[in-house]
This record gives sequence, structure tokens and C-alpha cells, in this order.
Amino acid sequence: MRSASAAASRENKRIGIVPTMGYLHEGHLSLIEIAKLHCDIVVMTLFVNPTQFSPSEDFSVYPRSFADDSALAAHAGVNILFAPEAKEMYPADFDIYVCSEKFGTILEGSFRPAHFKGVLTIVAKLFHIVNPQIAVFGQKDYQQAFLIKKMTRDLDFDVEIVVVPIVREHDGLAMSSRNVYLSPTERTQARALSHSLKIAEKLIAEGERSATKIIATMKEHIIREQDARIDYIAITEPETLAPIEQLLPDTMALVVLAVHIGTTRLIDNILIHIKH
Amino acid sequence: MRSASAAASRENKRIGIVPTMGYLHEGHLSLIEIAKLHCDIVVMTLFVNPTQFSPSEDFSVYPRSFADDSALAAHAGVNILFAPEAKEMYPADFDIYVCSEKFGTILEGSFRPAHFKGVLTIVAKLFHIVNPQIAVFGQKDYQQAFLIKKMTRDLDFDVEIVVVPIVREHDGLAMSSRNVYLSPTERTQARALSHSLKIAEKLIAEGERSATKIIATMKEHIIREQDARIDYIAITEPETLAPIEQLLPDTMALVVLAVHIGTTRLIDNILIHIKH
Repeated sequence: MRSASAAASRENKRIGIVPTMGYLHEGHLSLIEIAKLHCDIVVMTLFVNPTQFSPSEDFSVYPRSFADDSALAAHAGVNILFAPEAKEMYPADFDIYVCSEKFGTILEGSFRPAHFKGVLTIVAKLFHIVNPQIAVFGQKDYQQAFLIKKMTRDLDFDVEIVVVPIVREHDGLAMSSRNVYLSPTERTQARALSHSLKIAEKLIAEGERSATKIIATMKEHIIREQDARIDYIAITEPETLAPIEQLLPDTMALVVLAVHIGTTRLIDNILIHIKH
Repeated sequence: MRSASAAASRENKRIGIVPTMGYLHEGHLSLIEIAKLHCDIVVMTLFVNPTQFSPSEDFSVYPRSFADDSALAAHAGVNILFAPEAKEMYPADFDIYVCSEKFGTILEGSFRPAHFKGVLTIVAKLFHIVNPQIAVFGQKDYQQAFLIKKMTRDLDFDVEIVVVPIVREHDGLAMSSRNVYLSPTERTQARALSHSLKIAEKLIAEGERSATKIIATMKEHIIREQDARIDYIAITEPETLAPIEQLLPDTMALVVLAVHIGTTRLIDNILIHIKH
């Protein structure tokens, strides 16, 4: 990977990286498409990163399908597929991590305490190995993209971070490799996540400005599903993740949530412009 | 700095970085000399890094002398002196740090809990800004060089770490910018650090193989100085920092210590080959 990257640099080619955990869906394909617009060489990395899962989470059962992924990647125009082994990435006595002190401990971080440490560490490693000019991430993992932008600024990585909108199923469910875990009845219930975001959008369009009230209505909607259990629903400033209480004219609001449907934990979010 | 570095890379010039906190002494000059042997462009960075000092430590009084440092650096053949401001390096809402989970918490880390987080973070930032092929550090801060090598491996930095032997005053005191804090009587007492390392070396040469006994003799020697207060004396494997109890034939041992002389905290170490 390093030598391919060095060769591309010598030829003044722009490298774009699309880090993934594989089990590709249309969301991933849209990341590749955007990367191809910006770059000469698109490197997709495929690595189910153990350090971003806690022991109680789904690392061992996370869906994997290397043959399908490499066919999809090739078809989408990926130039290099980098799929290292865990023991290469985390050699014995691995000791150095990249950590967020503050922004990684709220929202997702308060429910998944070591998650962003794992994410930032693997992304820093991949940036060093692939040496890209551009990195493309999906908005579904909003806080992840937020923290990677913070890392890029705080640690002075010379990489431009591009965030691509969420790709959804026809009924609104955000595409996720984890959707495969859902049973048919859970799959139906999972629509409540994106529906509740639509409800927030509608309430705001109708003039509601109290975040508490919007969140309460979203909660009511979600808990009607018998297998739903909410981790959090929050309305925050998109640039700081600071909670918003009263929505103000001509600002942006991020509505973000994490909900378990049965044993499957799903996340979703929407950026809303408050017009007046 | 970034554009100078990019220009050097385009011309296929090898960049060497010598990170310092300034107040240069002959130890620093030896780092520059080694960097010049390996590289076309030597970048010396000069930054008293606030994040590696705890609030109770000497950040505000750390000796600074920019005019002398830049004259010395120029005379020693430094090509680029990079001396950023703290507010440039740590913008508002700085949040992302590089941390050691294990090796940064022992020895120095057990007395200076946030120290290596600050060191690794600033070195990662400087590596990203300067983009060197080689980085040169002094052996006096043995654990620091050890952790930077770990960081380079664990986070896949493509930088070779070179460690340069300690430069000493005529009476054995390891050169340090902090030696300027010592009063004349403290300066005399400070010889006990390097003398105790010489005693360890002599005991080993005479056949002593018990680390406990060697450390006890060193302690006795140091606490004879009325203003000395020992933080730690340890004998460890140089490659793992694991404590050694019984010294074995044909191995290397690191003897490492930290001692306060009055209000000045000094460190020193020696690598010893156990012949038989």
C-alpha cells in the first residue's frame, strides 16, 4: 500500500481514501463516487476494526463478505482495495492511541466509551499508510465525521475531509451494514428512526422552536415500536455538538439519535435549516 | 513550514526534524550534527509545549532565549527554524491527543501523568507539519524516545527515529536546559545523578547481578546530598522498559532515574551491556 501510494505521489496523482468496514451497500458506493470526482486514485480500505468495538458489542458477528465487496469496489471504480489483517494493524504490545478528550465522550461516546478512540486511531493509521489528499466519510456517522475533522485540524493532518449525505432505503431507513441483523418485523419497526427525523423536520417547518418538545414527540413516535429502546435523541449545533434548547432563525440544527431495535443498535441524523 | 517542506519533497530532498524546547546546549547541537549527516534539510523546531507540563510544573519559568537559539541553530547548520506560537498549535476547543495506554504511565509517567500525552501529541503534529523522513531525539529522555518509536510503529508514521547519546558536562552532569535552575551548591550536588550511574556500571563490571542491590547502593549515594529527593531509580530492559531483577549475561540493561535537587527535577540514564 505504501509503495503504491508513493508511486501515485511521484506522478502527482491525487489520492482519495474511503475507509470502510466492508459489507458494502449503496451508502459506501456513493462515497466511492464522490471520491472519484475529486481524485485520480481511489483507495478503499476494508477493515473491521476491533478497537472500536467494546467486548459486549458485535465485532465477532459483524457481517463480512470479502468476495462481494471486492467485486462491488472494482465495479464502482476503486483503484486499490486495502484490506489488512488485524494482527498487522495491531501488533503485539500495541500502546499508542488517538483520543478525543471532550467531543468523543458525548452522544455516541457516552454509550460507546472506547468507540471513538478506536475510530480515530485506525483512521490516523490509514491516513499514514495511504497518504491521501482527500478522505470521504458518510454523514450517517455524523459524530465520527465531526471527530475526524477535529483530528485533522488538531493533529495537523494535511487531508481534506469530505462528508457525503446519507443514502436511504425507499422507506427512509438509513443504509447500514447492520441492517442485515434485523428480522422482518424489526425491519418494519426500524422505519421509526428516519420517520421521527421527518417528524422533527415537519414540526420545525410548522414553527416549533423548543428542542425539548420536538424530542418528546420523536420519543413518543419511536417507543410505539415494541422492540425499540432509545439510547439518545439530541438536537445540537452541527459545528460544536452543543445541545440547543431554543431553535433560532437562520441557524442549522443537527437532530441525531441512536435506537436499539431488538438487539440491533441503529443511528441516524438529519441537518435542518431553521429558516425564520 | 508546510510549503517549505513540500518544496523540499518535490526536489527529492531528505528532511530531518530535530524537535526541541529551545534554550539550546551542546546536547541539542549534537542532535543537529547527526541530523545533518542523514538529511539534506534540517528543520529544528523550537516550541515550549504547554501540554507536556502539569499545572504544578515549570512551564512559565522554563528558560527561553530565542535570539541565542536562532544564532546557535544557524551556526550549527539548521536550514529551517520552526518556532510556532502556542495559540497556533493549540487552537480553541483543541480536543484530540495522542496517548500511550501503558508505556507512558510507568517511570516518568507515574510522576508526570499527562507528560507523554503532551509529548506524543506535539511530536505527531510536528511530524505532520514538517513531513520528515528522519527525526532525531536525545537519549537523555530515554522513555520519550522509546514512546516516540512506539508511536511511529503503532500509528504507522513513515519516519525513522534516531536516538543520539547523552552529552555531559565535564563532571558528568547530563546537559539539560533545566540545569540553569541549579544554584552553585545544587549544581555540585547534581553530580550525584551521573555518579550513581557510574557506580551501577562499576558494580556490574565487578559482577553484581542483583538490581535491588545496585539500586540500593545508588540510592545511598544520592541521598547523601542534602537537597536530593529521589522520584525513582529503575533497572529495566531497554526494549520493553520491563523491570529487571537479576541481570543476565549478554543482555542490555537500562539504568534510569529521576531526582529532585532542591526544586529542580533532573533525569539521567545509562545503557549497560552485561557481558557475562
